Amino acid sequence: MKTFSDLSRLSLNQITTNQWSVREAVEGCVRAGIPAIAIWRNKLAETGLQETVNIVRNAGLTVSSLCRGGGFPATSASERQANIDENRRAIDEAAALHAAVLVLVCGPTPDRNIDAARGMVTDAIEQLLPYATERGVKLGIEPLHPMFAADRSVIVTLAEATRLAKRFASPQVGVVVDVYHVWWDPEVYASIEQATGHILGFHVNDWAVPLPDTLHGRRMMGDGVIEIRRLRHAVEQAGYHGPIEVEILNQTIWNMPGDDVLKLMCQRYLEHV
Amino acid sequence: MKTFSDLSRLSLNQITTNQWSVREAVEGCVRAGIPAIAIWRNKLAETGLQETVNIVRNAGLTVSSLCRGGGFPATSASERQANIDENRRAIDEAAALHAAVLVLVCGPTPDRNIDAARGMVTDAIEQLLPYATERGVKLGIEPLHPMFAADRSVIVTLAEATRLAKRFASPQVGVVVDVYHVWWDPEVYASIEQATGHILGFHVNDWAVPLPDTLHGRRMMGDGVIEIRRLRHAVEQAGYHGPIEVEILNQTIWNMPGDDVLKLMCQRYLEHV
Repeated sequence: MKTFSDLSRLSLNQITTNQWSVREAVEGCVRAGIPAIAIWRNKLAETGLQETVNIVRNAGLTVSSLCRGGGFPATSASERQANIDENRRAIDEAAALHAAVLVLVCGPTPDRNIDAARGMVTDAIEQLLPYATERGVKLGIEPLHPMFAADRSVIVTLAEATRLAKRFASPQVGVVVDVYHVWWDPEVYASIEQATGHILGFHVNDWAVPLPDTLHGRRMMGDGVIEIRRLRHAVEQAGYHGPIEVEILNQTIWNMPGDDVLKLMCQRYLEHV
Repeated sequence: MKTFSDLSRLSLNQITTNQWSVREAVEGCVRAGIPAIAIWRNKLAETGLQETVNIVRNAGLTVSSLCRGGGFPATSASERQANIDENRRAIDEAAALHAAVLVLVCGPTPDRNIDAARGMVTDAIEQLLPYATERGVKLGIEPLHPMFAADRSVIVTLAEATRLAKRFASPQVGVVVDVYHVWWDPEVYASIEQATGHILGFHVNDWAVPLPDTLHGRRMMGDGVIEIRRLRHAVEQAGYHGPIEVEILNQTIWNMPGDDVLKLMCQRYLEHV
């Protein structure tokens, strides 16, 4: 399989350098020769939308995604409406940033009825789609690892995310593939193939053994057991040739100087992705 | 859906009372009116096989399963052979105990190649099957939660376990359904239906939110988000009417007096299973 010899498809997902503000992360990317960045909404809120747009634009970076929309299921109709409204604001921000996609982490079930929660996700995306379409924002449904089904997302397999995305029969809705969330799945390669033409993003990192923590246990590429390059190749076969985000939530990495993180990230990207 | 009004199908999986020896657990079951027990091999080793057989038989308990065989994949052929040999010993023990099934936790991948590890699992079961058949021992493939794919079992969905079991076209090989491992799966009810006639065991417990620990985070039925009764009903629809094991790995429960654990377990079983 083809290896990378340049960084032209690499994107820094901002959470990987959580120690940095938007400005610091953008300047770090410029220094490291990384052409794209994924912005997190909490960081954007700290800096302000217009200032974030200016910083990114002046640096000449592409915005591979905005993280995140979603969080749809809730017990009451008014809470669900509040979640929709919050997602409209996220769509506005994604439009202002010219982000390639708004990543959706769909949210947990508010009770024991996971099927009903899945229905709420479908309903919410249906409500959001016209708004996103008017603003030219794509919605990327990211299946999370099944260990997050109870507290982060009821959408936990790529097959399910793809079925959901295809229901809308719109180029504005697709899926985001993160190796950490899908690598374990005996159907992952079949699911990637089924997602052909609907993949809007690809995230890389690695799965440590033993896993120190479900949320913050992910590692730099090469430090775990995921067949990252094989997955990247499959995603390309399925038509995705866009940015590849490195997204790592890990305190050890957050304790490193940001420039060292980017240096290591670039090296591992060339070696393992 | 039908609720239970008696304990006739309840079984104590011995790990739930890890604070107890075989003898203590068996005597506890007798006091609590629990008619069946699942024995763990490490506890059996402490007590001795013949003594364990005698204790269980004299108490009049049924042995719903022996935990566990499996652990098949390994880097070298000699290691894989050693694993097969160890599983033959487990089959002998299951036969001596008249255990209804030997539960297989199939083992992790020894490297990044999860597909190859899955092939090793298939090969190992194929090798073991004649030995198990001669001794009248059933092999129950238990899919684990996908968060254990890297360190405990490469078999992580019920669909995959069922496909694997059906390959052997033998009543001696089937699947074991544990609610903790399968509840998140959008295909779980379809998978249970596909497993009709092949289900050899059913384990209950619950998924706490937030999950304090991947291995030891499971809880008593009713303390989490799993639709246990709906899953039990589906498993019955698929033809399983055997023992229902309560299997909980949890330090808080292990710190309780064993009799209190059994009392709580019986109450929650009647309320939630």
